Amino acid sequence: MIIAVTPNAALDITYRVDTLTPHASHRVTAMAQRAGGKGVNVAAVLTQLGHPVLATGWAGGAIGSQVLADLDARGIDHDFATSDGETRRTVTVVSREAGDATVFNEAGPPQTPDSWRALGEHLGRLVRATGATVVVLSGSLPPGVPAHGYAELVHLAHDAGAQVILDADGETLGSALSAGPDLVKPNRAELAAATGIPDLSGGVAALRARGARDLVVSAGADGMSWHRADGPALRAGLTEVLAGNPTGAGDACVAALAAGLAAGAPPADTLRDAVAWSAAAVLQPVAGVVDPDDVARLRAQILLEETS
Amino acid sequence: MIIAVTPNAALDITYRVDTLTPHASHRVTAMAQRAGGKGVNVAAVLTQLGHPVLATGWAGGAIGSQVLADLDARGIDHDFATSDGETRRTVTVVSREAGDATVFNEAGPPQTPDSWRALGEHLGRLVRATGATVVVLSGSLPPGVPAHGYAELVHLAHDAGAQVILDADGETLGSALSAGPDLVKPNRAELAAATGIPDLSGGVAALRARGARDLVVSAGADGMSWHRADGPALRAGLTEVLAGNPTGAGDACVAALAAGLAAGAPPADTLRDAVAWSAAAVLQPVAGVVDPDDVARLRAQILLEETS
Repeated sequence: MIIAVTPNAALDITYRVDTLTPHASHRVTAMAQRAGGKGVNVAAVLTQLGHPVLATGWAGGAIGSQVLADLDARGIDHDFATSDGETRRTVTVVSREAGDATVFNEAGPPQTPDSWRALGEHLGRLVRATGATVVVLSGSLPPGVPAHGYAELVHLAHDAGAQVILDADGETLGSALSAGPDLVKPNRAELAAATGIPDLSGGVAALRARGARDLVVSAGADGMSWHRADGPALRAGLTEVLAGNPTGAGDACVAALAAGLAAGAPPADTLRDAVAWSAAAVLQPVAGVVDPDDVARLRAQILLEETS
Repeated sequence: MIIAVTPNAALDITYRVDTLTPHASHRVTAMAQRAGGKGVNVAAVLTQLGHPVLATGWAGGAIGSQVLADLDARGIDHDFATSDGETRRTVTVVSREAGDATVFNEAGPPQTPDSWRALGEHLGRLVRATGATVVVLSGSLPPGVPAHGYAELVHLAHDAGAQVILDADGETLGSALSAGPDLVKPNRAELAAATGIPDLSGGVAALRARGARDLVVSAGADGMSWHRADGPALRAGLTEVLAGNPTGAGDACVAALAAGLAAGAPPADTLRDAVAWSAAAVLQPVAGVVDPDDVARLRAQILLEETS
């Protein structure tokens, strides 16, 4: 069993409009909404590929109930802690014009030390009750939670007997390393930003010096590399370049890493899965979705090598 | 008792951002949300000025519960019919740049003939149960409701013994006239658009020919005029020009007209109130709010004349 934690989950709303014109009034021609957040995407991908996973985090108010109802509708098992405030929303406006979407991210209600402690206790109970062997911590922290908040969750998960995968960036990533997460998954830009070191091996060494053990670094179309604490580094990539939507590719990668750790699979097999699941996510218009047929087809097209 | 009907109520969400940049991602620095819709604003103003009023319309889903919770928080009595779909949202983005806000209006879920009939029956029961003497019909109709939908509500309200004030525009206004609403409240632009006739007396005559009885036509800073079926026309305006937020001024005007009709007040007194309430609304940053002190002060500054 894997537990996927999203401390800053959201209701992701998408509006389609004809043309986005600042300072004008727009008729929304189509609307979609779904539970969002990196850990939610991880849980969604694992669910689609048949791996037992439980999604958790905070949910509060009427928006929280919309998030949980969407998880129910998508068949994603969940057990969220309740929060005093309303779960936050994000609004993405998509128009017919060229260019990326226009996004408005609510911060969400500030959490208190008490509510953060309550989420930690909730997580500890879930790990023990389900016998989960892997905990995934994904994404940003809500306002009010100190940057070292993830370090506390790493300790709690370890105390409850689970390994921890961390997918965070910036100060949040840096301050969680001292707790010794078993695997961290930055992309190249996040690694460079967290360390101030542009080259891969220098960045990896810098995170190791601060407490990281294994690292999987994703580099978009250039594939990904697994820097192991106890073994040679591995690098894997696709033989074809895919065009598509990179949103959610990182979450699909993390989902594969979690599945591999939970199964005790050899790192080379897990890294192949991570590339294939991530590439399958690129072919989908929304995050948190993969087609199992794409996964199977893409997994046969992966080149893997030891790099050290 | 007055009943204020909002068939297309919404949860109005306001986001503040630093600068609105199409195709960029924005941090929302402040968020506010409240129950919205023209009839909700009418009920809010009447409540603030101490007039008994009941707000109704449709509410559905988690967003509907947020709308009703906001009405509770603002002390506005309400009794909404339930709807199968989720109540719609509007999102208004306000930035530090000059210019108006950028607005995204969800259409809301389509209503069916059955749900429209259910709202009508709900309204009829409310009028009889409360002994309401005035029903206010405000704003647009949701998708799926035919334009003549308001005509049915006018008949239902009349059958239940109440007078009807209608504040709608376009085809919705035009197709309700045959049912003989007691008072319609277009602004100058709505009157011209509904009739194709730019001048005031021509437009009034055209709406009369289609079934309108009394009309109050608002003209922004130029005041408003009451065109009576049985009596001379009246015109009233402020002696000072106010700068402010015109959103909600029309709803405050309608609230005053409803209060006057419910009290059986002389039209001259009611029109003075309509100008004063409307002007007080201009001084507020959001629709549906007036300060009673502003109302009292402004009411002393009104010029009123008979114009025919």
